[in-house]
Amino acid sequence: MSKTVASARVLILAGGSGTRLWPRSTDSHPKPFLSLAGPHSLLRDTFERAVSVVGPGRVLISGRRAHADLLRRELPELPESVLIMEPVRRNTAPAIGLAARLVADEDEDAVLVVLPSDQAVRDERAFRSALDAAIDLARAGDLFVTIGIPPTRPETGFGYMEIAPAGPEGHAGARRVVTFVEKPDLETAARYLASGRFLWNAGIFVFRAVYLLEQMRAFCPDVLSAVEAAAARRRANDVAGFDESFAFSPAVSLDYAVMERTPEVWTVPCDCGWSDLGSWEAVFEFRGGDVSKSVLSGPVHAVEARSNLVLAHDKPIRVIGLEGIVVVDSPEGLLVMKRGASDALRKSVEETLRAEEAIRA
Amino acid sequence: MSKTVASARVLILAGGSGTRLWPRSTDSHPKPFLSLAGPHSLLRDTFERAVSVVGPGRVLISGRRAHADLLRRELPELPESVLIMEPVRRNTAPAIGLAARLVADEDEDAVLVVLPSDQAVRDERAFRSALDAAIDLARAGDLFVTIGIPPTRPETGFGYMEIAPAGPEGHAGARRVVTFVEKPDLETAARYLASGRFLWNAGIFVFRAVYLLEQMRAFCPDVLSAVEAAAARRRANDVAGFDESFAFSPAVSLDYAVMERTPEVWTVPCDCGWSDLGSWEAVFEFRGGDVSKSVLSGPVHAVEARSNLVLAHDKPIRVIGLEGIVVVDSPEGLLVMKRGASDALRKSVEETLRAEEAIRA
Repeated sequence: MSKTVASARVLILAGGSGTRLWPRSTDSHPKPFLSLAGPHSLLRDTFERAVSVVGPGRVLISGRRAHADLLRRELPELPESVLIMEPVRRNTAPAIGLAARLVADEDEDAVLVVLPSDQAVRDERAFRSALDAAIDLARAGDLFVTIGIPPTRPETGFGYMEIAPAGPEGHAGARRVVTFVEKPDLETAARYLASGRFLWNAGIFVFRAVYLLEQMRAFCPDVLSAVEAAAARRRANDVAGFDESFAFSPAVSLDYAVMERTPEVWTVPCDCGWSDLGSWEAVFEFRGGDVSKSVLSGPVHAVEARSNLVLAHDKPIRVIGLEGIVVVDSPEGLLVMKRGASDALRKSVEETLRAEEAIRA
Repeated sequence: MSKTVASARVLILAGGSGTRLWPRSTDSHPKPFLSLAGPHSLLRDTFERAVSVVGPGRVLISGRRAHADLLRRELPELPESVLIMEPVRRNTAPAIGLAARLVADEDEDAVLVVLPSDQAVRDERAFRSALDAAIDLARAGDLFVTIGIPPTRPETGFGYMEIAPAGPEGHAGARRVVTFVEKPDLETAARYLASGRFLWNAGIFVFRAVYLLEQMRAFCPDVLSAVEAAAARRRANDVAGFDESFAFSPAVSLDYAVMERTPEVWTVPCDCGWSDLGSWEAVFEFRGGDVSKSVLSGPVHAVEARSNLVLAHDKPIRVIGLEGIVVVDSPEGLLVMKRGASDALRKSVEETLRAEEAIRA
């Protein structure tokens, strides 16, 4: 831990779901709690990563109250005081604003780093260097810093950031963000990739906590007032009051509420083997699968098989004569899918959920 | 039930295993106990079929003592007196000889029908007619009658019977068997199919019980003497003595011990949609799967999928973008296989069993 980051804090966003990761990811056991990248959960990995950047005792976790037990089991060393349990889902802006309020109360110079907990990086060192540079930059002025991932394919599932043609030296090559763009179509994504002027938005934000609060006052005062009220109730240990105040906030993302409107956003490009693990295809690639190599986990016997992703749960899986197939076992169900059919999976799971809701209604 | 079959008995062979039906068929829960053809087990279906031919109270079951509890659960209406529990596996000749001895003791004119319990037929009426004709023919003389299935493909997994170029009229077109041939290679099987003079041997035998005993005396006296001794111990309710006597028999099939040597074997051709359900491919075909149609059983959601066999167990299976794939879930394990790769499955399961034995040894 370098001296410059001594007063930085991390907020880990432990919400998140993902119908494209059925049957492992479900509403009661969502993506951050899955061991998709290796032996530990994504949340556990994110927590270790956060500690390696800002040191112990400086990490807050925001999550859904419905997952409180899961959270405590996954991070048993954490005191209750660092858990921010949301009674209802309100997207990212209120959760991040609340953390900024709590952090600023303790240290008005504090820099806050916001990390989603459902991502993985292959090169931890490169990632830490980028975060250090981002913290440095954020501390220096009235601005926001993001982490920008150089695209490796014309991905249509991510938001992009367009960066200025040239930037000043220093801060690990940080560049100014000209504009945020939502998930593009394939043609646009291919153009972005070819231009070299677009980076993937990893949803990682770094800023001085008080600066965010100022900007929220300007761009989303309704979110800020809910957040201020919730923070006051939290200080008073008034859980019911906290819940009521928090729920009063509109549901809005920080991207939409602040980032796309505020004048000064910078990004630190980071080529660190980042993945959002947003689909089984992404898991396959992150874990080293390719046209000839399969990714196998657990008791799997594979015969005459290549380029498959096979994740066993408790009982053995025998895979014979397959190419390009995803097999994922779990207590909830079993998926057998052609690789790359993640959109069809998402639609199918959403249809089932709608049908189940219709039955309940 | 016609008058002519009043003194016929059926022996159901409830042994059998099948590594090509992993993970459903295992040593502790073998093929006759599986519901492969429909909602009931193959054994239950075979029992109902037997009762429809010879009437109730005339069916014996031979099986392994290790499966006694399974048998009683599957056929709870049967008294212990009709169960012949083999202490060790000795192939079919001793089991069939023993049943012939027990049946002949009760009725020396009795005709015995031997039915494997791991087969299915689509046209039950055609099958019953063929059996009635076979019983009729067997009662009339010193001969054996088999059921011959007209081949529909150049199958290399079955034994064949070559039939005489022409037969006399009557007995449902029964023809004399010139010779039994073991599982042929593909070229030979294709020649058999084209010739029109070869039928599949379904392993179904019909004969007067006393005639079998005579023939065993001539061709396999060592089997007969073990059988006679075992029958005597059984009559005396001496289980340990029965086990010892039975185990004394050589392990040999009735085909090899008698059928391939005895002079008079006839066959009743029976085009009844017979299947041995000997592989997942056979199950797929028997249950109506084809190039466009899938066979799905249990809670299966299939999207953009065709020509698959998907058998769920208790939890839901989601199948997306697949063609020509076998998915079978069971408490023992999970199979995901390209259709038609049954030989690779057999080899893989046998390798695992050998490895497990090596660890135990």
